[in-house]
Amino acid sequence: PDVAKTKITADDRALRNGHKGALIWLTGLSASGKSTIATELEAELFHHHLNCYVLDGDNIRQGLCKDLGFSAKDRAENIRRVGEVAHLMTDGGLIVITTFISPYRADRDSIRKAIEPNEFIEVFAKCPLEVCEKRDPKGLYKKARAGEIRDFTGISAPYEEPLKPELILETDKFSVAECVAQIMDYIKDLIYVEKRA
Amino acid sequence: PDVAKTKITADDRALRNGHKGALIWLTGLSASGKSTIATELEAELFHHHLNCYVLDGDNIRQGLCKDLGFSAKDRAENIRRVGEVAHLMTDGGLIVITTFISPYRADRDSIRKAIEPNEFIEVFAKCPLEVCEKRDPKGLYKKARAGEIRDFTGISAPYEEPLKPELILETDKFSVAECVAQIMDYIKDLIYVEKRA
Repeated sequence: PDVAKTKITADDRALRNGHKGALIWLTGLSASGKSTIATELEAELFHHHLNCYVLDGDNIRQGLCKDLGFSAKDRAENIRRVGEVAHLMTDGGLIVITTFISPYRADRDSIRKAIEPNEFIEVFAKCPLEVCEKRDPKGLYKKARAGEIRDFTGISAPYEEPLKPELILETDKFSVAECVAQIMDYIKDLIYVEKRA
Repeated sequence: PDVAKTKITADDRALRNGHKGALIWLTGLSASGKSTIATELEAELFHHHLNCYVLDGDNIRQGLCKDLGFSAKDRAENIRRVGEVAHLMTDGGLIVITTFISPYRADRDSIRKAIEPNEFIEVFAKCPLEVCEKRDPKGLYKKARAGEIRDFTGISAPYEEPLKPELILETDKFSVAECVAQIMDYIKDLIYVEKRA
């Protein structure tokens, strides 16, 4: 039988694309600004000719994780799967941005362990609970306070802040554009490689 | 709060990359040649400057689907998840190649339904069972015949041939290079778009 060519590797892709794959993992309370930052960041990366993709509740919960609910076990499994998909995508050369509350340190750390060093960038969208609760764009905090939503992060379920995130964005003090600039500044030395056609 | 820019779409990515995302779904018996074809096809796509990625048992079963076994239910869930990941990746601009036996028509058809028209390319690696069994590179058929593996496709579990695959590769009659050429020829009119920086 024919002999297979050598498999295309992540390095091959990086040399072709001019940048490595990476996982920018946004974590933080509901309404801390993760999704808005992700959308702006994706646009910014794209305009810099970097291949990128956002994984969020919209494209994950209705597809890959539609069999999962919101129990502690299902939430952990949701985050695990997001990590695995992100890993495949970074291996495929993409800069993946994820926007999940991901309140548990252990869940985030196990994803960090699976990803190449320097390719997991934990970004803590740090915003006081009072500010998030005041924003409350979807009225979720109100419902959580009224007991209509159980186990709501920050109200009736814990949020474990990252101990050593790659980046802390104080989203109550900086604009979205400023937060995006901080991420771009952080990753610029990590992701670019000299392009080879 | 800042207003988010318009989200980057699959069309934006296609114009940037010069090609659309697509899912090349290889289906067929064990040892029908799926993996070898996938590896060569990936190399060929890469050399044509097309962004591509292979999803196979190696990178799926040890990660995203490591919680699943080989019961009928778990196999169906495995294929469902592969379909969902492939969908996210094609949305992200990649040409995804999958190499799963995927013996059930219903499983394959439900993935087809989720993907954009013309972006799901079902490729049937057609090879007589006798030939696959003679090849038997991993000795799986031998074990299946000896009853050491249960529910083995083609021996003790059904394989439902695609009724209208986009492409049939007769892998017992054509070389791997020829099969790859047949796929390249099929997709060339579907995937390219005029590049816009």
